[in-house]
Amino acid sequence: MTNAEKALQMHEEWNGKLEIASKAKVNSREDLAIAYTPGVAEPCKLIAEDKSLAYKYTIKSNTIAVVSDGSAVLGLGNIGPYAAMPVMEGKAVLFKEFGGVNAVPICLDTQDTEEIITAVKNIAPGFGGINLEDISAPRCFEIEERLKKILDIPVFHDDQHGTAIVVLAGIINGLKVTGKKKEECRVVINGAGSAGIAISKLLLLYGFKNVILCDKAGIINSETENLNWMQKDMLKCTNLADEKGTLADAMKGADVFVGVSAPNIVSQDMVRSMNKDAIMFAMANPVPEIMPDLAKEAGARVIGTGRSDFPNQVNNVLVFPGIFKGALEAHARQITDEMKLAAANALADLVPDNELSDVNILPEAFDPRVRDAIAKAVMNHCKE
Amino acid sequence: MTNAEKALQMHEEWNGKLEIASKAKVNSREDLAIAYTPGVAEPCKLIAEDKSLAYKYTIKSNTIAVVSDGSAVLGLGNIGPYAAMPVMEGKAVLFKEFGGVNAVPICLDTQDTEEIITAVKNIAPGFGGINLEDISAPRCFEIEERLKKILDIPVFHDDQHGTAIVVLAGIINGLKVTGKKKEECRVVINGAGSAGIAISKLLLLYGFKNVILCDKAGIINSETENLNWMQKDMLKCTNLADEKGTLADAMKGADVFVGVSAPNIVSQDMVRSMNKDAIMFAMANPVPEIMPDLAKEAGARVIGTGRSDFPNQVNNVLVFPGIFKGALEAHARQITDEMKLAAANALADLVPDNELSDVNILPEAFDPRVRDAIAKAVMNHCKE
Repeated sequence: MTNAEKALQMHEEWNGKLEIASKAKVNSREDLAIAYTPGVAEPCKLIAEDKSLAYKYTIKSNTIAVVSDGSAVLGLGNIGPYAAMPVMEGKAVLFKEFGGVNAVPICLDTQDTEEIITAVKNIAPGFGGINLEDISAPRCFEIEERLKKILDIPVFHDDQHGTAIVVLAGIINGLKVTGKKKEECRVVINGAGSAGIAISKLLLLYGFKNVILCDKAGIINSETENLNWMQKDMLKCTNLADEKGTLADAMKGADVFVGVSAPNIVSQDMVRSMNKDAIMFAMANPVPEIMPDLAKEAGARVIGTGRSDFPNQVNNVLVFPGIFKGALEAHARQITDEMKLAAANALADLVPDNELSDVNILPEAFDPRVRDAIAKAVMNHCKE
Repeated sequence: MTNAEKALQMHEEWNGKLEIASKAKVNSREDLAIAYTPGVAEPCKLIAEDKSLAYKYTIKSNTIAVVSDGSAVLGLGNIGPYAAMPVMEGKAVLFKEFGGVNAVPICLDTQDTEEIITAVKNIAPGFGGINLEDISAPRCFEIEERLKKILDIPVFHDDQHGTAIVVLAGIINGLKVTGKKKEECRVVINGAGSAGIAISKLLLLYGFKNVILCDKAGIINSETENLNWMQKDMLKCTNLADEKGTLADAMKGADVFVGVSAPNIVSQDMVRSMNKDAIMFAMANPVPEIMPDLAKEAGARVIGTGRSDFPNQVNNVLVFPGIFKGALEAHARQITDEMKLAAANALADLVPDNELSDVNILPEAFDPRVRDAIAKAVMNHCKE
């Protein structure tokens, strides 16, 4: 049986990967009177007086919603809310298994920005956080930004920030391995969707100065046509020299390449044109922008992909469970930039200097230390 | 420790009465590749082609949403969505413990009819049913009716229909005990909110001909002021003689009284004015419209309340778990009138004729036969 067949068989057997379990036992009239009426009125009355007690008496304490509109699901594209459910259930499984966080998948029957914002605002009271997932750019930026302003619970678009945090952690350790300095690096990011833009922002926040964002048409510059508002906005902080040209032009002399784009679009010649000891994250999935062995052969030194069968896997599961675990424990109202940087540093620090190497810059997905390291980083930066 | 103190302590200990459990084990990279990417793409692709496969591969198969806006919670009134959560979590506990149905509490941060309808429509793809809960009248009528038209999954306002089904079941057996005939009974229903109106409708559907609906101002008639649209609508099928007067006037010569109103508003004199062998459901909680011993003393024969410490408890938990269990198993798109009648009959039938008595007209809440009897009744009436 192929893996695909196995996956289908298991999904049929599971018939839904989640179930709702009751912590309250109801075996007698007395139990009923405690968990339900009339006893349940007591916490209700207290919460009605002080909303913050919801964290004490309700599932808000440890439950988030995983919200998608099914518009940009994995490599499958705009498959809609019904077909997106298995992915969102899978995400909820990972939240629970890796972070101990209860997550409810909510797939929305709308792709209208205003309706999505209103829906999430309206379902928020019972949740301690909102993980946005697989919502296409540029709508995802506006949806996240506006929800962050409206809601008093963390809103986190994992495709953006989860990815950016793992990539930054990998690059932090890549710099250590190669001896490169962030201020001096030329960074090329190929793919100007949600992940590419979030990675650019976080690298700049970390202290990189020279970031070039590319898309299908090459280097994004002041004359590039058909940019969305966020891509235009990125010109204020990336490609400050307003360079023009192709991806190949951009990569000449680059120290770091980050691909969140398409299979096999980076050639060995492009890699050869990069600076010595290049750091490359070729994260197109399942086929990367360039296969690691080809990149290595062409002179790249530290190479990461999205795949588990090569070294240095960039996997969001390293980040999102711990982010929300920490945020929920701290009753955080936001996932701030400081928390994201702290999470990246904490993740990088899990690989001690004496274990660092070209092929070991990130912890393994199943490393049991990861969750708490990330959670602690988030909690330390939570102002209460 | 009082029960109230115990309830508060337990709610703090639970810190949320529900948790989301994963059916999928994720202990290895292989597990990850089945439950999540890349394996998860397989069911996604199939559902994208055929939406109905959501019942095969996702939690839609056995998960409903318990939706409230917190506007009419138990006896607490309009306490809002945060304070309503313990009740909705409790309801979800009962769905699971009594029906094996997974239920997610969703408390909405809006009391606007349009926003509620839009929110429920938008979150529906991942759910196999919607249980509306504790939404005030008359908004609850419009919300339910419109959602039933929009959605292809069952929408069921338990405060209306759950209550109505149990009351009808009790009355069916009350008729057997007293030998009364439904066509000849004068029925007085006091309280013209969601429950009172739904009870009136279901009794008429069952075959009662003479139903008088009363509210604070007495008998609802063509001259009653400040009626909402639904109460006006009820004049087409209730109080056909357009009687005027007080509740006391209404009760003269009545065979059946159903109270979903306020404590102690029925006097012994009113009971004495009823027909012989009167059937009374005094369901104001925790203090009924008239205490059972007083009603008995004044000549009523079959007396039910909402309380577990008197005979003939009318408890919705007899109905809603089985209703949704059956609806989910049958992939029902609606809870039809036929299903409601069938559920009431099935519930009544659980008390065999040789066990029927004035003080035994309904099964106990913990009777293990109840769930499947109701579910089967629903499934038998589901056209697929």
